[in-house]
Amino acid sequence: MKMFFVLVAGFAAATALAGDGFSVAYPEGYRDWRHVKSMELKPGHPLYESFGGLHHIYANSKAVKGYKSGKFQDGAMIVFDLLEAKNEENALVEGKRKVLGVMARDAKRYPETGGWGFEGFAGGDPAKPVVGKNAVKVCFECHASQRGNNYLFSSLRD
Amino acid sequence: MKMFFVLVAGFAAATALAGDGFSVAYPEGYRDWRHVKSMELKPGHPLYESFGGLHHIYANSKAVKGYKSGKFQDGAMIVFDLLEAKNEENALVEGKRKVLGVMARDAKRYPETGGWGFEGFAGGDPAKPVVGKNAVKVCFECHASQRGNNYLFSSLRD
Repeated sequence: MKMFFVLVAGFAAATALAGDGFSVAYPEGYRDWRHVKSMELKPGHPLYESFGGLHHIYANSKAVKGYKSGKFQDGAMIVFDLLEAKNEENALVEGKRKVLGVMARDAKRYPETGGWGFEGFAGGDPAKPVVGKNAVKVCFECHASQRGNNYLFSSLRD
Repeated sequence: MKMFFVLVAGFAAATALAGDGFSVAYPEGYRDWRHVKSMELKPGHPLYESFGGLHHIYANSKAVKGYKSGKFQDGAMIVFDLLEAKNEENALVEGKRKVLGVMARDAKRYPETGGWGFEGFAGGDPAKPVVGKNAVKVCFECHASQRGNNYLFSSLRD
């Protein structure tokens, strides 16, 4: 997985990340995963500055099992796909991708962040990871509040 | 709006649909289909009365091929999944399902509606179809405007 990522990205920042024990691969094919739920953070929301816009949550099959069982196995991956929320003629329409967030379950590899690896890709670009070694500060400090829900803010709905 | 009236008032007429040549089956498993795109119709939008809220579009694998190739084969199915848009602390969150709309491709069976069968399920309940024989009036009169796009308002995005 790591090698695939490096080969595809072929990018200075990416190669620097490989082997650091923190990097999370770009979630290839996530648009075919299960759409879990969606939400728009609007102006005035505490997280608007970072995550304002319309986001969709996607889960791979292992993550779907995790949502259902309450226990996430290694390999479970969850995507936070944040798009601009544009207002057009009294409708909210999707704009450009702002960031693609990923949580990848690997209990042994990510002990400091609840067994989840975190990464974000600016604009959804696999060559632009923005979290790297800063996952504790930029991701987990907030997700830690969700310890009782496997560190997730989302849950599966019908 | 006429469309809204028919959607709401059509419950009784819709229960005896099986075998009438018009009925479209409930799209079992559609939540595992490809999430195509989302949109919120807000107050002031011309279709707000009928379709106000946050909707997600899902496509089965044949429909995904159709979006990509521009030609939809029989068996392609597209879902319009409309949820209440609730405003909670400066966030739009998903509420109850209002209606589940379905388009099912069968060129020979649905000649009067562009080769697509249309149905809607009130509250997403498979036992509550609300369109039945009224597809021309309550669905196609609007979708006909999209003839150049296979009668669809949606298109596939990344």
